[in-house]
Amino acid sequence: MSTLYLKADQETISKYVIFSGDPWRVEMLQKLLDDPKHVAFSREFNTYTGTYQGVPITISSTGIGAPSAAIAMEELYDCGMEVAIRMGTVMGLKEGMLGKVLIPNGAMRLESTSDSYVPKGFPAVASIDLINVMNQSVKNNNREYLNGISATMDGFYSQMRESRLSKKMNTDILKTFDDLEKFNVSGVDMETSLMLVLGNLMDIKVCSVTMTTVLRNLSKVLEGEERTKAEQDLCKIVLDGIVLLDQGEKQS
Amino acid sequence: MSTLYLKADQETISKYVIFSGDPWRVEMLQKLLDDPKHVAFSREFNTYTGTYQGVPITISSTGIGAPSAAIAMEELYDCGMEVAIRMGTVMGLKEGMLGKVLIPNGAMRLESTSDSYVPKGFPAVASIDLINVMNQSVKNNNREYLNGISATMDGFYSQMRESRLSKKMNTDILKTFDDLEKFNVSGVDMETSLMLVLGNLMDIKVCSVTMTTVLRNLSKVLEGEERTKAEQDLCKIVLDGIVLLDQGEKQS
Amino acid sequence: MSTLYLKADQETISKYVIFSGDPWRVEMLQKLLDDPKHVAFSREFNTYTGTYQGVPITISSTGIGAPSAAIAMEELYDCGMEVAIRMGTVMGLKEGMLGKVLIPNGAMRLESTSDSYVPKGFPAVASIDLINVMNQSVKNNNREYLNGISATMDGFYSQMRESRLSKKMNTDILKTFDDLEKFNVSGVDMETSLMLVLGNLMDIKVCSVTMTTVLRNLSKVLEGEERTKAEQDLCKIVLDGIVLLDQGEKQS
Amino acid sequence: MSTLYLKADQETISKYVIFSGDPWRVEMLQKLLDDPKHVAFSREFNTYTGTYQGVPITISSTGIGAPSAAIAMEELYDCGMEVAIRMGTVMGLKEGMLGKVLIPNGAMRLESTSDSYVPKGFPAVASIDLINVMNQSVKNNNREYLNGISATMDGFYSQMRESRLSKKMNTDILKTFDDLEKFNVSGVDMETSLMLVLGNLMDIKVCSVTMTTVLRNLSKVLEGEERTKAEQDLCKIVLDGIVLLDQGEKQS
Amino acid sequence: MSTLYLKADQETISKYVIFSGDPWRVEMLQKLLDDPKHVAFSREFNTYTGTYQGVPITISSTGIGAPSAAIAMEELYDCGMEVAIRMGTVMGLKEGMLGKVLIPNGAMRLESTSDSYVPKGFPAVASIDLINVMNQSVKNNNREYLNGISATMDGFYSQMRESRLSKKMNTDILKTFDDLEKFNVSGVDMETSLMLVLGNLMDIKVCSVTMTTVLRNLSKVLEGEERTKAEQDLCKIVLDGIVLLDQGEKQS
Amino acid sequence: MSTLYLKADQETISKYVIFSGDPWRVEMLQKLLDDPKHVAFSREFNTYTGTYQGVPITISSTGIGAPSAAIAMEELYDCGMEVAIRMGTVMGLKEGMLGKVLIPNGAMRLESTSDSYVPKGFPAVASIDLINVMNQSVKNNNREYLNGISATMDGFYSQMRESRLSKKMNTDILKTFDDLEKFNVSGVDMETSLMLVLGNLMDIKVCSVTMTTVLRNLSKVLEGEERTKAEQDLCKIVLDGIVLLDQGEKQS
Repeated sequence: MSTLYLKADQETISKYVIFSGDPWRVEMLQKLLDDPKHVAFSREFNTYTGTYQGVPITISSTGIGAPSAAIAMEELYDCGMEVAIRMGTVMGLKEGMLGKVLIPNGAMRLESTSDSYVPKGFPAVASIDLINVMNQSVKNNNREYLNGISATMDGFYSQMRESRLSKKMNTDILKTFDDLEKFNVSGVDMETSLMLVLGNLMDIKVCSVTMTTVLRNLSKVLEGEERTKAEQDLCKIVLDGIVLLDQGEKQS
Repeated sequence: MSTLYLKADQETISKYVIFSGDPWRVEMLQKLLDDPKHVAFSREFNTYTGTYQGVPITISSTGIGAPSAAIAMEELYDCGMEVAIRMGTVMGLKEGMLGKVLIPNGAMRLESTSDSYVPKGFPAVASIDLINVMNQSVKNNNREYLNGISATMDGFYSQMRESRLSKKMNTDILKTFDDLEKFNVSGVDMETSLMLVLGNLMDIKVCSVTMTTVLRNLSKVLEGEERTKAEQDLCKIVLDGIVLLDQGEKQS
Repeated sequence: MSTLYLKADQETISKYVIFSGDPWRVEMLQKLLDDPKHVAFSREFNTYTGTYQGVPITISSTGIGAPSAAIAMEELYDCGMEVAIRMGTVMGLKEGMLGKVLIPNGAMRLESTSDSYVPKGFPAVASIDLINVMNQSVKNNNREYLNGISATMDGFYSQMRESRLSKKMNTDILKTFDDLEKFNVSGVDMETSLMLVLGNLMDIKVCSVTMTTVLRNLSKVLEGEERTKAEQDLCKIVLDGIVLLDQGEKQS
Repeated sequence: MSTLYLKADQETISKYVIFSGDPWRVEMLQKLLDDPKHVAFSREFNTYTGTYQGVPITISSTGIGAPSAAIAMEELYDCGMEVAIRMGTVMGLKEGMLGKVLIPNGAMRLESTSDSYVPKGFPAVASIDLINVMNQSVKNNNREYLNGISATMDGFYSQMRESRLSKKMNTDILKTFDDLEKFNVSGVDMETSLMLVLGNLMDIKVCSVTMTTVLRNLSKVLEGEERTKAEQDLCKIVLDGIVLLDQGEKQS
Repeated sequence: MSTLYLKADQETISKYVIFSGDPWRVEMLQKLLDDPKHVAFSREFNTYTGTYQGVPITISSTGIGAPSAAIAMEELYDCGMEVAIRMGTVMGLKEGMLGKVLIPNGAMRLESTSDSYVPKGFPAVASIDLINVMNQSVKNNNREYLNGISATMDGFYSQMRESRLSKKMNTDILKTFDDLEKFNVSGVDMETSLMLVLGNLMDIKVCSVTMTTVLRNLSKVLEGEERTKAEQDLCKIVLDGIVLLDQGEKQS
Repeated sequence: MSTLYLKADQETISKYVIFSGDPWRVEMLQKLLDDPKHVAFSREFNTYTGTYQGVPITISSTGIGAPSAAIAMEELYDCGMEVAIRMGTVMGLKEGMLGKVLIPNGAMRLESTSDSYVPKGFPAVASIDLINVMNQSVKNNNREYLNGISATMDGFYSQMRESRLSKKMNTDILKTFDDLEKFNVSGVDMETSLMLVLGNLMDIKVCSVTMTTVLRNLSKVLEGEERTKAEQDLCKIVLDGIVLLDQGEKQS
C-alpha cells in the first residue's frame, strides 16, 4: 500500500534519498539520474527513483517547513529509507563562506515540530559517516567545506526577513541574526534540525549539504554562471558522496 | 515587484483569497472561477485569480503546516489581501458531524509558528463577520454548520496518526484525541490556528471552512458520490459566502 | 444543596447570568429587574434573580481576578447557567474608542487560572450567537460597538498601573501597553479570558460587554452625565441583548 | 488621596495589618478592637482600624485569590503597612493537624500572580520575626503550632475540589493532593505565596497564621463549640502576637 | 555498606553536619573538632567526624555546584543526618554587609538541580529553629547577622563573573546583579537553594551561614587579619550554634 | 595571573586537555605522561601537564556535575585550551555495549548549566575531527567503538539511582531510563552535554570518550582484570588519539 501523502512504497523507494525543499527542483535533479521513474507528485512532495553510477537513489521534496519535512521523512522511513540528505542553498552568517559547502554537524532546534517527538534538549546532530563522505566528496569536487552549527526556524517573515506585518508589529528581525552570531551559528533554514532529530530517533543516517549562495545583509551573492556552476557542483557532490558511502558499506 | 515565494503582486491578487492546503486542488478550484488567470505555481504555492458572480477572487495554496501557511499569508497580505478563507476537509472529533461544515470560531494553538509572532495566550479567533456569512451560506446551500474549537498541530505522525516511528517509540497517539475530547474540541488540522492569529495581527478577516468527511476512528467516512457532492458543496458555500460578504460591505 | 461560596442552587438561578466584577454594583443592577429576589451576599459574591421583559435573569459578581471569577462561573454552572455575560467598564487601548462598547470576540490569556484547566494554546473565544445579539443590541441602543481582542492579566499593580512597589522595583509598566499595541489588542481586564475559556469547556455561551470610559494615558475620560448615561446604556444593552437571544432561541 | 480600590490612606491605616480572605468576617473581627473606625467596604475589601491593648491595628480583607490579595497588599503598602498577617482556616494535609495552628515558614508558588513580579524560583518565605512571635503566642494561648510548607493555587474547582466541570473533563483532583504529600506540604490555600513574595519584595514582615479546621478527605472536622473556640483562639493568637512583636520592637 | 561517593555510613556520620564547598577547607575545619576521625576523601567529598564541646559533629564538603551538593546531602541523609549547615563566604549585594553574617531565610532557585526533585514554585526556605540558634550564636560572638534572600545559580562564568567566553559572546554579566537588586536579594552562591529544598523534602533542618567578605564591584573587601578573624569567627559561630541547638533539643 | 579556581595560566596548560570527573584519578593518569608537572589541586580541580610521545598534554578534573565542569572548561579556555576530551566510564543503555567505547556524537541537554549560555535548542554536538581520530584510535587499540547520543543530567539520586529520599518521595527512577530508551540514547552522565555546548560556543574541539563498564540493571559488569584492562585501554586510546590529531594538524 502506498503512503498517504507521498504515494510511495517499498518497491519504488531506494534506501538512499536526497531531499530538496522545492518540489519543482526535483524535476531538474531527476535528470541527473539514469532511468528515473516518477513515483508521484502529490501535495508538495515530488518523488523520483533512478540510479547514479549504478547506485539506486530516490529524489524527493519536503516542501517548506518542519511539519511537511516530518511527513516526508516518516513516509519514506516507512518505505525503508536508510540514508537521507537534505540538499539546498543557504544564507551564510559568517565572512568568507560564499561558494563554500556548509555541512552542519548539528542544528539549533528553533523549530517546534521536533518537540512533538522528543524534549528540546535532544541534539539535532548529523551522522558522522555521512559527514565524512560528504566532506570527502566536496574535496574531490574541488570545493571547500565547512562543518558547524546551523539554526532551523519556523517563522520566515517573523524571524528571518522583514515583511509588511513585521514592520506593522515593529519586529526587530536583525535580533535573530545578532543572537545566532553570538552562538557561533553558520547558517539558517527551516527543516534541518527536524530532519537530524528524526534521523537519530529512526536510527538512520541523515545530514544536510548546502551551498552558500548569499551572505547575511546580501553583502555578497553568487550570481550568473558562478551560481549555476555552484548548484551543479552541489548536485554532483551529493551524488558522488552517496556513491562513496555505498562503496564504503560494501567494503565493510 | 513580485513576492519571493508565491511570485504574486498587488495587480494579480484580489482582496478575497481562498486557500487550499493542496496546491493540486487549486487546479480544480480555479475551474469554478470565471476567466481565471494563473499567477504562478512556485514551491507548494499555486495561485489563480478570477471572478465569481462578478467578485474578484484569488485561489491559492498553503502547503502542509503552519510555516508555509505563514509565508502564503504574509506574501498575499503584502499584495493587499483583506479576507482569507482556509477551505478543506476535516476529521470530526464528535458524533454526528459527518457531512456537516465545521467553521471554528477559535483554534487551539498546538502549532508553534504562531509563537514566533505573539505569546501563546493570544487567541486564535476567527472573524465574526466571516463566520456569519459562511454560516448563512451553509444554510443557503442546505447543509448544516457547526461552530466551535479546532486544534492545530505540527506533528502529523507524532500526534495524529500512527507510523513506523511512532510504533518504534511507543507513542500513544490516542492520547492526543482523548485530551482534545476533554477540551471540547471538534476538529484537528495543521494550519488554522496560525492563520487565525495572523488575521488578528494583520487586522484582516480570516476563517476556516471545512467539510467533515471522516470521523475519528474512521468509524464513519463520506465516500463515493456523497463525498464528491460534499466537496462540491463546500466550494459553493465558500464562494457564495464571499459574495454575501462583498454585498454586505457594499451596502454598509 | 446550595453551593459552597455563592450559596446558590438550581431553583434560585436563571439560565441567563450577568456578572459584574464589583459586588456592590450588583445592588444597583438588581433595581433594573422586576421582582428581584436576593440569593446571597457571601464573600465577594452578591447574587439576585429577577425578570426583565418577562425573561428570568440572574445578576451576580465575580470579585476581582480570575480565581474568584472561576469560582463564580463553576458554581453557577452547577446551578444550570447556560449564558454568562461579563458587564463592566474598560480602558480602551485605541484611539476613538471612548464611549464605544467593546465586545471582544477573543481574549489574550495573560492570567493563569485558565491554565489550571487547559493548556495555554486553547483560545479564549466568545460565543458567536452572544456577540451577534449584543452587537445588535448596541445598534438598537444607538451606540457603536467594537469587536476585537482583549487582554486579561493577573497583576494590576505589576502590569497595568504604577505603585509604590513598582517604582521601588523599577518596573516598566508602559511596556505592557506597548506590547499589547503591537498585538492589536483593544482593552485590558482581569477576568475575561478565564470566563471565555470556561465557556468553551462548559459548552455554554459566554461573552464580555464593556463600555470604554477611559483611554490609555487617561488622555480622554468619560465624566459626569456622559459617564452616567454610558453606564445606563451599557446595562440596557446587555439586558436587551439577553431578550433578543431569548426570542431567537424560542423561534429556532 | 485614598487608594483606588480599598479607599485607604496613610492616616487611616496602621502599620500592623491583619487580612481575612472574607470581607464579611472582618465585621466580626473589628469587634475585637477597641474604638474601631470603618475605613471602607469597597469591592471585596472591607477595612477597619482600631487598637488592641493599646496597639493600633488595621483589619482588612483580600477577597479570594492572589490577584485581589495583591491589590490589597499593594494599596496598604502604599499607606505605610509594615507588618501583614493573613489569618484564616486551613485544610490540613497531614495526620494529627486538627485544631493545630499552621504557621508556614514558606509556601509553594502554584499561583501565578506572583510571577508577574519575580521569576518562579524566588522563594515565598515568611518573616522569621513574625513566625517567632506567632509561635510564642500560640504557646501562650495553650495551642500547638506547626511550621512547614503550604501550597497556594489559582484554581479551586480545577485543583482542589470536584465540580460539575471537573467531572465533565475527567479531572483527577486527587492528584493535586498526592503530589503535595510527596513534597511534604501541610496545607493549601489561594493567597499565601503571593503575600509572602510581596513581603520580601516590599521588605516588610509577612506571615500566615491558620487554624486547621478540617483534614483532607474530610476524615476529621472541627465542629460546633470546638470550632467556635478554635476560631476565637486564632483571633486572640494573632492579636496577642502583634502585641508581642510591638513590645519587642520597642525594646530593641 | 558505605555510600557510593562519600564512602560514609551510619556509624561514621553524626546527625549534625557542617558542609564546606571546598574539600581542602575541611582539612582546616576538622582541627577545630576534638578527636576527629577521617571518614574519606573521595571525589570532591572530604569528610571527618569528631566532637565539639561534647557534641558529635561531621564536617564534609559539597564541591562546587548543586549536582554534587545534592549527592552529598543525599548520601549523608542516608547515613542519618538530621541537621545540615552550609558554611562559607559570600559576596554581599547590599551596602553595609561587609563583615556581617548572612543567614538567608530563603533562597532563589536559579539553579536547576532542585527542579529534578520538585517544581520551581516550591520554596527554598531554611529551618526556623536553625536560623534562631545561628542568629543567637552570631550575637553571642559579637558579630551582626542579616536574614534575607540569597540567590543560587548554576553558571559562574555565564552569570556571575566575566570570562574570555562571556566577552566573546557579549554577555552582560551586570544584568544578573541588577535583577537581583530589584528583587531585594542579599547574596549569591551555587548550592544554597538546592540544600534548602532538599531539607524540606527530607524533613530535616538545613540552613546556610555565610560571612560577607566582599561587596559587589569589589568596592569593599575584607583582607589580612580582618579576614582571618572573620573566618575564624564564622567557624565558631556555626559550631556554637550547633551546641545551642543540641542543648535546646535536650531540654524540650 | 593564574585563574581563580584551577590556579592555571597559559604557561602551564597545553592546548590538549584530558578531563577526568574524579580529581583523584588524575593522580593515576599523570603517571602515563612523561615529565608531568603539577599545576595545582584546588577545590575539585587537580591539574598536571606533561608530554606523551612528545605531544604536550594537560590532565585535569571537572568534579561532578555541569556547574564545576563549566568552571574547568572556562578557566582552561582562558589559558589557551583548543582541544578538550572528557574521559571516563559509562553505564551503557543498550545490549552488547559492555567493554565497548562510547564516543557520543551528540548529547541530550538534560542538565541546565548550559541553559545559562544558550537556549535549549542549541545542539550539544561533538567535534567531527576529534570523533574521527578517537574512533581510529579505538580500532588501533583493538577495541570496538560506538557513536550515538548520550544524555546528561543534574540529579544523580533524583533521576538515575534510588535513594532514601527517592523512596520517601515515591520517585520512579526507572522512568528516566524508559524514556531514554525510546529516544535511542546509549549512555548517561552528568557533564558531557555542557562540555559539548561550550566547545561549540568557544569554537574549540570537544568530545567525550567513555568505556562501558556496566549495563543498565547491572545485568552485566566489567570486573577484576577485565575492568583494569578496559580502563588502561581507555587511557591509551585517548592519548593515542591526541597524537593522531596532532600529527594530522601538522600535516594539514
